[in-house]
Amino acid sequence: MSTLTPELSKAKPAQRRRVGKYTTALPTYPRIKAVYTAGGPKEGAGPLGDKLDTIYEDHLLGQRSWEQAESFMLQSAVERCMRKAGVEREAVDMLIAGDLLNQNTGSSFAARSLDLPFIDVFSACATMSQATGLAGILVDGGYAGRIVVAVSSHHDTAERQYRFPTEYGTQRPPTAQWTATGATALLIGDSDERNDDNGTAGEEVAITHVTFGRVIDMGIQDPYNMGGAMAAAAADTIHRHLQDTGRSLSDYDFVATGDLARIGHPVAADLLERRGHKVDDRFTDCALLLYDFGQIGGIAGASGCACSGIVFGAHFYPQMLAGRIRRLLLVATGSLHNKLTYEQGETIPATAHAVAFEVRGAKR
Amino acid sequence: MSTLTPELSKAKPAQRRRVGKYTTALPTYPRIKAVYTAGGPKEGAGPLGDKLDTIYEDHLLGQRSWEQAESFMLQSAVERCMRKAGVEREAVDMLIAGDLLNQNTGSSFAARSLDLPFIDVFSACATMSQATGLAGILVDGGYAGRIVVAVSSHHDTAERQYRFPTEYGTQRPPTAQWTATGATALLIGDSDERNDDNGTAGEEVAITHVTFGRVIDMGIQDPYNMGGAMAAAAADTIHRHLQDTGRSLSDYDFVATGDLARIGHPVAADLLERRGHKVDDRFTDCALLLYDFGQIGGIAGASGCACSGIVFGAHFYPQMLAGRIRRLLLVATGSLHNKLTYEQGETIPATAHAVAFEVRGAKR
Repeated sequence: MSTLTPELSKAKPAQRRRVGKYTTALPTYPRIKAVYTAGGPKEGAGPLGDKLDTIYEDHLLGQRSWEQAESFMLQSAVERCMRKAGVEREAVDMLIAGDLLNQNTGSSFAARSLDLPFIDVFSACATMSQATGLAGILVDGGYAGRIVVAVSSHHDTAERQYRFPTEYGTQRPPTAQWTATGATALLIGDSDERNDDNGTAGEEVAITHVTFGRVIDMGIQDPYNMGGAMAAAAADTIHRHLQDTGRSLSDYDFVATGDLARIGHPVAADLLERRGHKVDDRFTDCALLLYDFGQIGGIAGASGCACSGIVFGAHFYPQMLAGRIRRLLLVATGSLHNKLTYEQGETIPATAHAVAFEVRGAKR
Repeated sequence: MSTLTPELSKAKPAQRRRVGKYTTALPTYPRIKAVYTAGGPKEGAGPLGDKLDTIYEDHLLGQRSWEQAESFMLQSAVERCMRKAGVEREAVDMLIAGDLLNQNTGSSFAARSLDLPFIDVFSACATMSQATGLAGILVDGGYAGRIVVAVSSHHDTAERQYRFPTEYGTQRPPTAQWTATGATALLIGDSDERNDDNGTAGEEVAITHVTFGRVIDMGIQDPYNMGGAMAAAAADTIHRHLQDTGRSLSDYDFVATGDLARIGHPVAADLLERRGHKVDDRFTDCALLLYDFGQIGGIAGASGCACSGIVFGAHFYPQMLAGRIRRLLLVATGSLHNKLTYEQGETIPATAHAVAFEVRGAKR
């Protein structure tokens, strides 16, 4: 009866990777090998428009439904990310993806064309950091050599699923957030590889720590105030991350939550200050960076899995490669309700996952 | 600026854990420390009824909605599993959970009371093996010492979400499956610990391999024939697992798919035989083991995250502890559609994840 290969059966238990109680360190520094971002017309017209790899001109992309368009965006992001990295699909071990649609169909319908072992994850708008953190761990531990991480969201699929039929044109209160249309894919690989041809001048972005969030419920019931619902989860995860690592906020060039927007972000800042952290303008938020506020009609900011995905991929990542940012803590936030829980009068639980990135040499 | 702890910064890249192209081996043999299963009245009246830890007498459990009842079942399963293992919540590092509800609210609403870092996963009825495989990996790599895995499903929440309002009492065709009501929680820990007080006489169930599935779409559009939709995904994952490990079906005492039921299971057997595998009655299916067929009125079998959860926890696991089964391959299957994709005329993509379990000594 065959068991493990001789080589594996001699393997020692891996060294413990825990730092503090809640945080995992990735001592082999898994690297981001390529990033691909796509957005819709509004994202293309915003301040990050010229950094996007692809701007789609409408919300259907030639598909028969918005849902199919979202799935197509995610699938295409994965394929183009692999192409950008010069890596064939056969050399990728796994896809980790998620989105906002019921039963994650944005991702699973994309995955049927991608022919990769698929780990399907959900953290609402925190999916970007949950998936990236998990991919970093699996590569760090040698469970995969290369993983593609992908997230998507689509304004119209989210609007009609979570709130009202899009055609109603429902008015939004100032606390509301605008679900971004777009997709982001990252190729994550181990750090023994070199990658000389992507303009990094010998430097790459590594994943160094992951802090998975607890689920925190502030008792907010209004699905038009998700930033308020998520603020405490963001502050909780950041606080635990800093405690575990012995770092302070100033050890990061930026700590970017996403998507707390204009209501939630000051609340999170306040909660962090009450816990003794010194907050300055390096504490920022993805929801505030994706659009000019004029674009979204006076509401609180952006949201959606694609918001933190695009802002990471098109804003922070290029600045890290260019050496302008050395360390980033990305703390994507997610509100974990669905339409039925809201209709049943439930409050909105939320979570936030933190991933620490650091610029490191491409050769060890 | 603090970075990694000195101990961690000296850590070498972990040994590669890949076996073949698709399969991960867990050479430290993470152990199942405790299993807890709960079911509703129908599950309690079935052949595994006397093995369940808790049988709930109705579908509301004193809650205001079926959805709240499902979430309560999952939360309670996690708490009681930790109690059964004699482990305090403070000594658990993480919760990995999932269910069938839109946005996984069965799990996320449970998680807000559980105060554990939470990784939210979705693979429809394959969630049991996705979550268990992931937990095994995270413990094997030293990213967590103890993880609770939990899944739930609820007949009435699933029925009205995926199909028709429950009150219609819609007739089911013979290909339909009955979503189980129940929850299962496993406590997974590393193998350096001992566990003398659960009747194992020095033996525990270890997780040895994980094979994550691809997404396969057979072109089936009928949500009342999920077994048919999932059969190819099950056969694909099993075939790749056997290729990667150099094992044959006969190296396992049982290979249990779930939930293919009476339509899908013979199809999967046929597909495996066409690929050269010798199939005998050790190839079984969780959907065929949970109920007596009289209980569910001539339909094809059970389904739901709780089906493979309960059948693993109340049927296979006790037999492994008792020494009657040494090796089990659990291949939970999931159909990844939602109600809208069905209404939009889409076919049903499916996946299957395989986790290999083996009885091993409690002391290394």
